[in-house]
Amino acid sequence: MTIKIGIIGAGRIGRLHANTLTTRVPSAKLLAIADIFADAAKSAAADYGIPDYCADPAELLNSDDIDAIVICSSTDTHTRFIIEAARAGKQVFCEKPIAFDLAEIDAALAAVAEQGVQLQIGFNRRFDSNHSRLKRAIVDGEIGEAHTLTIISRDPSPPPLDYIKVSGGLMMDMMIHDFDMCRFLLGEVEEVYAIGDVKVDPAIGEAGDIDTAKVMLRFENGVIGTIENSRQAVYGYDQRVEVFGSKGAATTGNWHPNAVTISDARSVRRDLPLHFFIERYMDSYVAEMIAFVEAITTGGAVPVVGKDGRAPVLMAMAGMSSMRENRPVKLSEVETG
Amino acid sequence: MTIKIGIIGAGRIGRLHANTLTTRVPSAKLLAIADIFADAAKSAAADYGIPDYCADPAELLNSDDIDAIVICSSTDTHTRFIIEAARAGKQVFCEKPIAFDLAEIDAALAAVAEQGVQLQIGFNRRFDSNHSRLKRAIVDGEIGEAHTLTIISRDPSPPPLDYIKVSGGLMMDMMIHDFDMCRFLLGEVEEVYAIGDVKVDPAIGEAGDIDTAKVMLRFENGVIGTIENSRQAVYGYDQRVEVFGSKGAATTGNWHPNAVTISDARSVRRDLPLHFFIERYMDSYVAEMIAFVEAITTGGAVPVVGKDGRAPVLMAMAGMSSMRENRPVKLSEVETG
Amino acid sequence: MTIKIGIIGAGRIGRLHANTLTTRVPSAKLLAIADIFADAAKSAAADYGIPDYCADPAELLNSDDIDAIVICSSTDTHTRFIIEAARAGKQVFCEKPIAFDLAEIDAALAAVAEQGVQLQIGFNRRFDSNHSRLKRAIVDGEIGEAHTLTIISRDPSPPPLDYIKVSGGLMMDMMIHDFDMCRFLLGEVEEVYAIGDVKVDPAIGEAGDIDTAKVMLRFENGVIGTIENSRQAVYGYDQRVEVFGSKGAATTGNWHPNAVTISDARSVRRDLPLHFFIERYMDSYVAEMIAFVEAITTGGAVPVVGKDGRAPVLMAMAGMSSMRENRPVKLSEVETG
Amino acid sequence: MTIKIGIIGAGRIGRLHANTLTTRVPSAKLLAIADIFADAAKSAAADYGIPDYCADPAELLNSDDIDAIVICSSTDTHTRFIIEAARAGKQVFCEKPIAFDLAEIDAALAAVAEQGVQLQIGFNRRFDSNHSRLKRAIVDGEIGEAHTLTIISRDPSPPPLDYIKVSGGLMMDMMIHDFDMCRFLLGEVEEVYAIGDVKVDPAIGEAGDIDTAKVMLRFENGVIGTIENSRQAVYGYDQRVEVFGSKGAATTGNWHPNAVTISDARSVRRDLPLHFFIERYMDSYVAEMIAFVEAITTGGAVPVVGKDGRAPVLMAMAGMSSMRENRPVKLSEVETG
Repeated sequence: MTIKIGIIGAGRIGRLHANTLTTRVPSAKLLAIADIFADAAKSAAADYGIPDYCADPAELLNSDDIDAIVICSSTDTHTRFIIEAARAGKQVFCEKPIAFDLAEIDAALAAVAEQGVQLQIGFNRRFDSNHSRLKRAIVDGEIGEAHTLTIISRDPSPPPLDYIKVSGGLMMDMMIHDFDMCRFLLGEVEEVYAIGDVKVDPAIGEAGDIDTAKVMLRFENGVIGTIENSRQAVYGYDQRVEVFGSKGAATTGNWHPNAVTISDARSVRRDLPLHFFIERYMDSYVAEMIAFVEAITTGGAVPVVGKDGRAPVLMAMAGMSSMRENRPVKLSEVETG
Repeated sequence: MTIKIGIIGAGRIGRLHANTLTTRVPSAKLLAIADIFADAAKSAAADYGIPDYCADPAELLNSDDIDAIVICSSTDTHTRFIIEAARAGKQVFCEKPIAFDLAEIDAALAAVAEQGVQLQIGFNRRFDSNHSRLKRAIVDGEIGEAHTLTIISRDPSPPPLDYIKVSGGLMMDMMIHDFDMCRFLLGEVEEVYAIGDVKVDPAIGEAGDIDTAKVMLRFENGVIGTIENSRQAVYGYDQRVEVFGSKGAATTGNWHPNAVTISDARSVRRDLPLHFFIERYMDSYVAEMIAFVEAITTGGAVPVVGKDGRAPVLMAMAGMSSMRENRPVKLSEVETG
Repeated sequence: MTIKIGIIGAGRIGRLHANTLTTRVPSAKLLAIADIFADAAKSAAADYGIPDYCADPAELLNSDDIDAIVICSSTDTHTRFIIEAARAGKQVFCEKPIAFDLAEIDAALAAVAEQGVQLQIGFNRRFDSNHSRLKRAIVDGEIGEAHTLTIISRDPSPPPLDYIKVSGGLMMDMMIHDFDMCRFLLGEVEEVYAIGDVKVDPAIGEAGDIDTAKVMLRFENGVIGTIENSRQAVYGYDQRVEVFGSKGAATTGNWHPNAVTISDARSVRRDLPLHFFIERYMDSYVAEMIAFVEAITTGGAVPVVGKDGRAPVLMAMAGMSSMRENRPVKLSEVETG
Repeated sequence: MTIKIGIIGAGRIGRLHANTLTTRVPSAKLLAIADIFADAAKSAAADYGIPDYCADPAELLNSDDIDAIVICSSTDTHTRFIIEAARAGKQVFCEKPIAFDLAEIDAALAAVAEQGVQLQIGFNRRFDSNHSRLKRAIVDGEIGEAHTLTIISRDPSPPPLDYIKVSGGLMMDMMIHDFDMCRFLLGEVEEVYAIGDVKVDPAIGEAGDIDTAKVMLRFENGVIGTIENSRQAVYGYDQRVEVFGSKGAATTGNWHPNAVTISDARSVRRDLPLHFFIERYMDSYVAEMIAFVEAITTGGAVPVVGKDGRAPVLMAMAGMSSMRENRPVKLSEVETG
């Protein structure tokens, strides 16, 4: 069985999913791509051999041919498209974050629940071989009961300022992946304490955002965690997680483009790690889409659901609140705030 | 521009190329697959969405629709299909080894030259990111003038005995890749000395082959090399190369399925390396096919030519001769032998 | 020139320094060791060839033959011996922590200053090759301006409960080394936020202490840091530090008893890291003592002075206060508290 | 019990053993050092606090106070001193190689046997933690039955030409350690095939020696081995061994002065490995001397005996013969030659 898919949004991530769906997911048939910039949709259609394109997402949402919608448009449009897709009876895949506002998210999740469709959120890192191996180490008891978690997650360079201004800020845009990783590996978080600063580029600060942060987390199960983010690691994408427990530790390292070591008169060295998320996480983008398509075709449950999209937004809100007030903030404060 | 391709041979490697050509090489259109076992061809066609299949390779060779032939049949048929494809004006990609016999190889190369078509040999490891990085280290002078080469190449487990019997032996079937690597990295070899033995499975010895070998090589440029092969490394596929020179060394390591380290009360450990050539070298199979298709479409030269297919066969012959006589054997002896 | 030394305290660390001083520090002559348990002093004297021993530290403090005193007695006696040694005109080396009370520490430092002697504090980790390399990476600008610091420091197993009860608690006894490392690498800390818990052994909790903690630190220069401590890493002593900055990162790894990798059918593994501080930090104990003796013999300044002993105590106090009140605590609050 | 020792030879290795014996071997008492250059003996005595020194080794050999002689003089004097020491009833430790001539060696071993004293040969690398771990992996069956051995052993830079001229050549001076390692790990060798060349410095060739070599070895138990030596690895001392067997592989890596990784905009790198044998193998020099002293004091057998000194000389001879004749040479040919 094949499911027929339409993509909304022909930007970087929309194109990435288009490429994946056309070449790596045999059970999917990508029928159309929509973008309010018709040229972007047209160009993606040409590049990836998509039969149809349009400027108006409504065409996809109203098409009887389409079984599932992949939402890759800007964050402020996510919930609208989720709701419309759900009402049109489509299965939905939506990029992270769902939205910056809890009420908006809740409305979208309610629509999904009412219509009985499925919604998968694009937390691709769960499908990465490092992170699934960590998860297995925890679940299988290889490292015993978890005591602490350490996440270090650094980008090679900041996104454009224009993007930063609409991104929701570092915690909503970048650390959201790490918040999700916390929940994926070790369950719900109760309280966060955050320190953030502008160290990379003053213009980021002028835009009201930070580029460097450390966050301390208290999990409901007693695990103590820390997350570090930086918008600029000059050596490339740095993505590491360590879970430490009563029987040991599981620690991920970075991937490099080759496994060659050069020894010369100055040092023993390797080439830099894979530069950014497209190189580093490509396999996980393929795997999440295969999982989505398989869940839809088999009638199984999608692996990352609406509440998985909501919870990290709450964590980001608590983190931002903690930074502003320089005190630990409980998620329950934000929830009821 | 798109080139239209037919595959001869629907075995393991034929299926691998079918998968690659249909999903990862945008400029290629795989039109048909032939196999004397029609069911194998049929099943591959179904699995990879190939429009046509047949039992008789002649159908592909005679088809005006087909620009290039990818030969994945058994070794004893390689030269025949190369010659027929060349005479039909097709571009040719042929798996290694071309043949076990020099005269036969020379006839095939002559046909290719006469017809003015191109022939690429399937030494995929040249396209692996580790090996291309090594090559770059040498060419760019990062490690100075090369003095020595060390290759360790071990399979996870021996192939079936039936395969071993027609394989041409460890040197022709397995070490041939390492012989090619020698030439790819450091040029022509002058003399080889080989020790081989049966250590893994006596049945391999009874079949007239060896399963473990070390070979010493004297290169024309004075480099001294060693190759080690074993048919069975219980920890998986072990593929390492080191080039040592006047300004340093370049050393490749193995790839693992994840970059996770587990520390527990017994050890600090990683999961085993990628298990075998399909996992380990998949990217290089894609890259060699892209290179072939690009050369054909642009009229450029293919990157691994007929003489690159012939030379490692000569080296394997010298190695086998050296083992029999327990003395260093010059390639020139075999050439004129 | 040789300096003549007496050690007060013949417990584990006193014996360690006795061994170092008699075999690895050529310019030192260890004349005597004192311990209120005379048998312990006697046994140490026999084991390390120390000419004299006694039960009463006053004998050493009053001896004209002795130039310098190495204080290895229990923490509650440190400041008393520092003051007495200083008044006797002796140079002083004192183990960490100086004391648990700021006023007491200030009295000792005042005595040292008044008498014009020198006081070195036993923060041996500053002399470790990993940490001095980190320091050099920072000072030389190899990693640019520092942005963040991450310390993970885990013991192989908790000390005896009797020791824990008089240790001053995890932050005063164990994390004090990490607090010192913060200052050694990156300067003064302004504020700390701490989460601590009992995860290893409930008896530690019953004794009023914690066994697992994470601390977030805000440095005066804007660096954001985290420290993690656990009393029990089943795989052995885990001692890692990472400094991340505008031009890169410097990261330390653990040392193992050998550099052998075993690959078998289950994993690719190494033996566990060096088990505990004596194996791991022996070289740094030698180096700190050589530095002390050299400073005294040459009239140079000792490398770790009184205020370096005081500041980490203040940090531990702030950490304990933060845990109690679940809020970030400024060092200035504790100072004036 | 303490044994009283005299050293003959106050050059680099004599001084190294003097330092070890005076500081790290509690059961040894180093009484005197002799060197035909009296100034060298005097200076060593001063530096290491040795009570006595002399120019004439006979003084040590004839002294009733001395229990054991450590021979660190030039190779051409080894057997003479072994014989004289044995006749004087002294226990003997002698540096490698014993001599360049089998008859001479046999005479020395006969004298030792006749006099009933013990002779330990200075193959320190057996006492290195990497090599003893490898040995344990083999003996304990961790890697099953051994199939192959790969040794890579490279110096950071060639010794002075004057030394090379009297060294016996690369195989007798440098590779002799690797020949010993072969026997230590896997037993006796039957046949060797060697290729050597001058790649580092033409002056070495003019002095009649080589600076780069690869040797293939056939062990009596069927193991196939290779050794590679270079006089110059610009990145420092490179000392690696791998044993591969039916159940896995054991592989040693190099040691570095620190375990710090620096990641910057160009690479992820470590500082160079420990530069040379004194840094790299210091612990093994201490361990071999402790083992010698313990064997003598307890009446046990020394761990590296006369035939362990003789066999690698035979292997070096076979290797040199193989290079000259470009053919595999059996050790039995040299033995009876």
